[in-house]
Amino acid sequence: MKHAFGFLLALVAGAMLASTERVPDQTDRGGAPIYGVKIPPGYRDWKLISVAHEAGANNDLRAVLGNDPAMQAYRKGTLPFPDGTIIARLAWVYTASEANNKLFGRPQSFVAGPAINVQFMVKDSKQYAATGGWGYAQFKDGKPDTAAKLDTCYPCHAPAKARDYVFTYYAP
Amino acid sequence: MKHAFGFLLALVAGAMLASTERVPDQTDRGGAPIYGVKIPPGYRDWKLISVAHEAGANNDLRAVLGNDPAMQAYRKGTLPFPDGTIIARLAWVYTASEANNKLFGRPQSFVAGPAINVQFMVKDSKQYAATGGWGYAQFKDGKPDTAAKLDTCYPCHAPAKARDYVFTYYAP
Repeated sequence: MKHAFGFLLALVAGAMLASTERVPDQTDRGGAPIYGVKIPPGYRDWKLISVAHEAGANNDLRAVLGNDPAMQAYRKGTLPFPDGTIIARLAWVYTASEANNKLFGRPQSFVAGPAINVQFMVKDSKQYAATGGWGYAQFKDGKPDTAAKLDTCYPCHAPAKARDYVFTYYAP
Repeated sequence: MKHAFGFLLALVAGAMLASTERVPDQTDRGGAPIYGVKIPPGYRDWKLISVAHEAGANNDLRAVLGNDPAMQAYRKGTLPFPDGTIIARLAWVYTASEANNKLFGRPQSFVAGPAINVQFMVKDSKQYAATGGWGYAQFKDGKPDTAAKLDTCYPCHAPAKARDYVFTYYAP
């Protein structure tokens, strides 16, 4: 019965959520709830899409990186993004740099402090058809965030539907 | 005579500033004054070291990227950086994102606008021995900035001598 259920789930969720047997393993190794997204190996080495600063409650500096399909799509203006695209959003605490400010002679320099968390958008138009073709995940210190937080990803990204739910523009 | 002078200059300046015959070519292809640094091919694909925001007169969002020797040195904590290290600093106009602010319900989101300029630090402990082992360049729209502006690079970086004249820390 367990294996039969696993087989059904595999049909529904596709390769990344292959079977119930793999779910505990995904969690152990950093798989996130709802979408089953794991931390993509080597993402910290991906190419830069753009940078941003979110003030307010976020209070972060962030970089948005893309795997090769992401970069190709961005640079060619391809929409929607192809399956296999992964976009990573890294955020660090927005931190005044005392050393830099001394040089500039005034408090103007803000740098990346400790890491806050990392988010991923994974494009799989079939597996994630119900959420615009994207699966979402957030990790803090390598551990996935709760399902409750991931519930907010898709509704928040929905206004960017015309750009395949992606907010970030490529920085020239 | 021209070739003799070129030979002498090659001895002094090393491989990157090989001969007087190459100087006009460097300028045409984006070589910067003083240090002769050219735009390194493919730098936009380099890996991310960190991000920052300079307020005040700069008013930018910036990313600092590194070539492979730079990344290896950063990740291993190697100081001084080895010859061949190149660190790129890309800056874009600090731009409020109206679209993002609508979603957040308040003016908190700042993204990368048009490109301002790109700077490079090139490590060559022999060629640039007089300036801490680093050659500096700044390019705007692919064209090198004036010698006068490059004069300020080394004095400004001098306070970071203990970190081999590099301000930027690696963002985890």
